[in-house]
Amino acid sequence: MTPATIDLNADLGEGFGAWRLGDDEAMLDVVTSANVACGFHAGDPAGLSRTCRAAVARGVRIGAQVGYRDLAGFGRRFIDVSREDLVADVVYQIGALQALARAAGSTVTYVKPHGALYNTIVTDAGQAEAVAAAVHAVDPALPVLGPAGSAFFAAAEHLGLRTVPEAFADRAYTPDGTLVSRREEGAVLHDVAAIADRVATMVQHGRVTAVDGSTVAITAESVCVHGDSPGAVQIAHAVRQRLLDDGVLLEGFV
Amino acid sequence: MTPATIDLNADLGEGFGAWRLGDDEAMLDVVTSANVACGFHAGDPAGLSRTCRAAVARGVRIGAQVGYRDLAGFGRRFIDVSREDLVADVVYQIGALQALARAAGSTVTYVKPHGALYNTIVTDAGQAEAVAAAVHAVDPALPVLGPAGSAFFAAAEHLGLRTVPEAFADRAYTPDGTLVSRREEGAVLHDVAAIADRVATMVQHGRVTAVDGSTVAITAESVCVHGDSPGAVQIAHAVRQRLLDDGVLLEGFV
Amino acid sequence: MTPATIDLNADLGEGFGAWRLGDDEAMLDVVTSANVACGFHAGDPAGLSRTCRAAVARGVRIGAQVGYRDLAGFGRRFIDVSREDLVADVVYQIGALQALARAAGSTVTYVKPHGALYNTIVTDAGQAEAVAAAVHAVDPALPVLGPAGSAFFAAAEHLGLRTVPEAFADRAYTPDGTLVSRREEGAVLHDVAAIADRVATMVQHGRVTAVDGSTVAITAESVCVHGDSPGAVQIAHAVRQRLLDDGVLLEGFV
Amino acid sequence: MTPATIDLNADLGEGFGAWRLGDDEAMLDVVTSANVACGFHAGDPAGLSRTCRAAVARGVRIGAQVGYRDLAGFGRRFIDVSREDLVADVVYQIGALQALARAAGSTVTYVKPHGALYNTIVTDAGQAEAVAAAVHAVDPALPVLGPAGSAFFAAAEHLGLRTVPEAFADRAYTPDGTLVSRREEGAVLHDVAAIADRVATMVQHGRVTAVDGSTVAITAESVCVHGDSPGAVQIAHAVRQRLLDDGVLLEGFV
Repeated sequence: MTPATIDLNADLGEGFGAWRLGDDEAMLDVVTSANVACGFHAGDPAGLSRTCRAAVARGVRIGAQVGYRDLAGFGRRFIDVSREDLVADVVYQIGALQALARAAGSTVTYVKPHGALYNTIVTDAGQAEAVAAAVHAVDPALPVLGPAGSAFFAAAEHLGLRTVPEAFADRAYTPDGTLVSRREEGAVLHDVAAIADRVATMVQHGRVTAVDGSTVAITAESVCVHGDSPGAVQIAHAVRQRLLDDGVLLEGFV
Repeated sequence: MTPATIDLNADLGEGFGAWRLGDDEAMLDVVTSANVACGFHAGDPAGLSRTCRAAVARGVRIGAQVGYRDLAGFGRRFIDVSREDLVADVVYQIGALQALARAAGSTVTYVKPHGALYNTIVTDAGQAEAVAAAVHAVDPALPVLGPAGSAFFAAAEHLGLRTVPEAFADRAYTPDGTLVSRREEGAVLHDVAAIADRVATMVQHGRVTAVDGSTVAITAESVCVHGDSPGAVQIAHAVRQRLLDDGVLLEGFV
Repeated sequence: MTPATIDLNADLGEGFGAWRLGDDEAMLDVVTSANVACGFHAGDPAGLSRTCRAAVARGVRIGAQVGYRDLAGFGRRFIDVSREDLVADVVYQIGALQALARAAGSTVTYVKPHGALYNTIVTDAGQAEAVAAAVHAVDPALPVLGPAGSAFFAAAEHLGLRTVPEAFADRAYTPDGTLVSRREEGAVLHDVAAIADRVATMVQHGRVTAVDGSTVAITAESVCVHGDSPGAVQIAHAVRQRLLDDGVLLEGFV
Repeated sequence: MTPATIDLNADLGEGFGAWRLGDDEAMLDVVTSANVACGFHAGDPAGLSRTCRAAVARGVRIGAQVGYRDLAGFGRRFIDVSREDLVADVVYQIGALQALARAAGSTVTYVKPHGALYNTIVTDAGQAEAVAAAVHAVDPALPVLGPAGSAFFAAAEHLGLRTVPEAFADRAYTPDGTLVSRREEGAVLHDVAAIADRVATMVQHGRVTAVDGSTVAITAESVCVHGDSPGAVQIAHAVRQRLLDDGVLLEGFV
């Protein structure tokens, strides 16, 4: 029997200048894919360069984590950007990280939107198309990582881009397979062992228990883990260990 | 007899968002090489993208015009950047423009520093080495455009980069072949016909008349023209026409 | 009979660093109130300082033109800012301009929102309240300039702020007295004489002809004129001259 | 006998958006004066506002910590700013913080330059004069906090500003009373008890032991403590406790 295979991804390189956020080194020991910020919502070039080199040193793949141009808001605020601006902003960000990755001896192997942009293009067909068009303009062979069933994936597939659906290790799901909004009670899970179990079930059986107790089918080629707090790093480690213990193969999607 | 050949370059893409600077369309009818800003001293991605597409439409080559991270100062103020920051800042800028150029159907074919960075690395060996190392890290085959005899060229040549010396159409020269400082009277020339004559002599005879009336040898593979005022565009046109009238071949350096 | 009195206002100080926008000097010869940018959507401190001094030299009053933190978008893109951020952003901007105005020998006498923020708080009660609360926190005696009947004015009046309704010289109105959207044909008027007539009627008779030909009552203590093109400056001059010819008193609201 | 009196100051409000730096709450329990960043080298308006309110809640005075416009460099890189820009940048920053302080129920009671600007104006008469002129333009009654014997103090005194000399709790001094450069071994002290003793001696006896073992006279109305690491906060607490134990009165300078 072929062992199950999964990719683990996390957001990295999210400091800026003198400011640090999360523990990149610790997370690079957990993940197989690093969503590295590109300077628009976070990430100064020197810091991004350090993150790229650290990823290369551990054999972790680099993806471009593109976001709105909003350092003050960390890319977490919706911005009503025109199509022309959004396409160019995303092309610019991917290219910048490509050069930093290349200088570190690697390459950008996928693109994942960040924060409010990620959330917006679940449903906003216009911004979804703009992001997909930008990725396509840079390199039609670049896969995009994101939420299954989104306007973003529809637009990406329309352009022939490979779409890689992801699941979230520490987020509650509704009975129809979408994420429970962060504004609702219980949206984020905290129990380390329960999260590890949950991910193991997602990966090996393709299902997750929703907030109402029902079982939901879930298709994921990658699982997103967080690293922005000591607790988060601990969870990420537990998820990784549990998957390894279960004989799951951890490796980047192609 | 082989006709003389020369490249004409100008700084383009130097607006930002709602702000315009210079007349990119007009200058693209004059030059063979466009030094396109990269977003750190000027240039929002959508505007840079428009400039790249306009350059492609006219067969004008694209170079990365890299500068200090200083929109408020337009890259005209010296900043005491660390080597690590400067290398990464330059890599980031080149990569960003590479992606925009690629999306426009072209590529970045050279790198030219801008403003205070250009002036600083004439003599500052540390920053010069950082800029050269950044270009080398992105692509050792990328030529650099700049001032002959500079610390920058020394550093670039040390790394095996091709260096392309440029002359300035509208600047006065000292008897030892360097530019007269802009702070001095007569540093910038304004007489259209005189400038056209001057460039014709530079290109065809490799010499220029210095401020003291002496004749100075000058080696240039490219001549920089300006386009940031209606008068500047007129001068650029006159220079181009004069060279064509003299049978000089206008084409980008390789 | 008391002559009609009106204030004329325009957006000024909207360059940034090396970039200029509009002709501040020309417009300061027309208006009685200058809406000076505050650095978040436009305006570097030195440029704002020059605009303040030029306003003081002509006896023109200074207002704080506050906007979203978005230089790349010139404040023209809606941003989903939290209340906490928006309040603090507006307080910060007003304070910065107060100091520049004071250093120029004047003071900030009112606040006017800019661009997408202006449009958003016509209907968005949350952002409207945040802007009003910010003005109130800086100085409860500061009037706000904006659109009559807006959520912004409701919030401002609730806090006891004085609200000053404005009309637009060159914009078409719907039969219910709101502006025709810029996305629609005919939203912006261009005929100099017609605009001057129109403003004269607004000011002296309190009415305007809507796009459907009907007459609409309009209450304005100030009329906004634009200065971002040579044509706009010409219109602004014509409006001023027409009002003076009709014996209207041009002076800032109190 | 009158008890010795001293002010304790620290840099606060130095996060930006999602990024935190140092523990403002902890340091506000130690100091009598908070040097609050103003948004140019650090500090988004909402974060600055929270710091101001926290200072007010503890009766700690607010000073404007002005710096170069350089978020990516945290104000730690020298920038060759023109006089016009530097004056306006400093006026802008002070005004912005004044409004935030006022909204928090307090006021800006002094100005202290930050980072590379602080270091530059020890000797650079041009930038020193610009900073002093900016403070004077905002309010000639605002004291400036900084290094005794500096070009900055000379310029400030020339304009009639009150100058408040400070000492550093954890920095080594040369025999002539200046700070040992951070590039040299032993420039920063780490021994908690030794630092507390040292400050007690500075405050009560006006002298400090220099790196060569000699005793140097030192005049300080304020002592700067740091809070950017857990160890730094511990040192700051120890300094405060030692001074209180010695019967020294901790209060802001006037």
